[in-house]
Amino acid sequence: MELLSKLPGIGPKSAERIAFYILRSQGDYAGSLTSAISEAKSTIKPCRTCRNISERDICEICSSPDRDGSLLCVVEHPNDIIAIEKMGRFSGRYFCLMGALSPLDGIGPDDLKVNDLINLIKEKKIREIIIATDSDQEGDTTALYLSRVIKPLGVRLTRIAFGIPVGSNIEYADQATLVKAFEGRRQFS
Amino acid sequence: MELLSKLPGIGPKSAERIAFYILRSQGDYAGSLTSAISEAKSTIKPCRTCRNISERDICEICSSPDRDGSLLCVVEHPNDIIAIEKMGRFSGRYFCLMGALSPLDGIGPDDLKVNDLINLIKEKKIREIIIATDSDQEGDTTALYLSRVIKPLGVRLTRIAFGIPVGSNIEYADQATLVKAFEGRRQFS
Repeated sequence: MELLSKLPGIGPKSAERIAFYILRSQGDYAGSLTSAISEAKSTIKPCRTCRNISERDICEICSSPDRDGSLLCVVEHPNDIIAIEKMGRFSGRYFCLMGALSPLDGIGPDDLKVNDLINLIKEKKIREIIIATDSDQEGDTTALYLSRVIKPLGVRLTRIAFGIPVGSNIEYADQATLVKAFEGRRQFS
Repeated sequence: MELLSKLPGIGPKSAERIAFYILRSQGDYAGSLTSAISEAKSTIKPCRTCRNISERDICEICSSPDRDGSLLCVVEHPNDIIAIEKMGRFSGRYFCLMGALSPLDGIGPDDLKVNDLINLIKEKKIREIIIATDSDQEGDTTALYLSRVIKPLGVRLTRIAFGIPVGSNIEYADQATLVKAFEGRRQFS
């Protein structure tokens, strides 16, 4: 229960329920669970190119010839890659920072392997870097930092748009989002 | 109760509670409520220029010399004006459509007084029209229609940005919003 309650979103009560569920479980559920965890832990590792989680040295996206290698999207976490892949409109590759700059938590450029990113940009013929860090404080700081270190490389550098979510009403938008929506207004083409 | 339950967000149960609250109310609460409603209904009318609700013929925003008359923001409802005014960053004036195009509900350009908008653009020296309709189906249809009728006037025409709301994580963005965020990505200046 002590270990279960360390999982994200699992409090002491849930940990207790999960523990009793496992104890009462039929068949070899407990055995399957422990071996799945061990196997995942031992076989899944960061891709050597993009740092996304993978069962191989180089992940499927980095090794696929169908992906546009000249387009690189920088994200904070592997979950972000899953979300963007579900969208189904991005055909480039990724670089996963595995976090965001946060001086208060002691997370600096070295922890995010920014040098690996810069080397990757220099090695591959990159046409555009799309920064898709979150729109919170850490994500903004990271985007700003990356823009400063990437700009001297002379590659096109963009950040995904912030504004009103699709299907939503202006009236319910928070003020910071409205400010971004007005600042980022686009001309009709 | 029958009349109260017609109010938005008030079901039969709430109407019952409200009715009994009014019946049991102390002092002249009921009298104040009815006279406030009558007074609002008789004195508040649409501004003759922008159609926003106002106690005067020409609303405060349209008559204020501090507002930039060359910048016009087109919204669906007066509530949107309240939200944008709270943001405190928009110094122009408004035009309130009092709705959005919805062929299924029989709402066409005449109901939105689009001709009044066009005349306003022709009369005043407008530098930029910012379309701030909602990001739903009706809002999109309205924005597209307006772009077609306004473009021949040769005025700069923009629409507020759609994308990830401020403070939010990429991972939790819905797919349609992510598509807009990628399409609308902006170059670092």
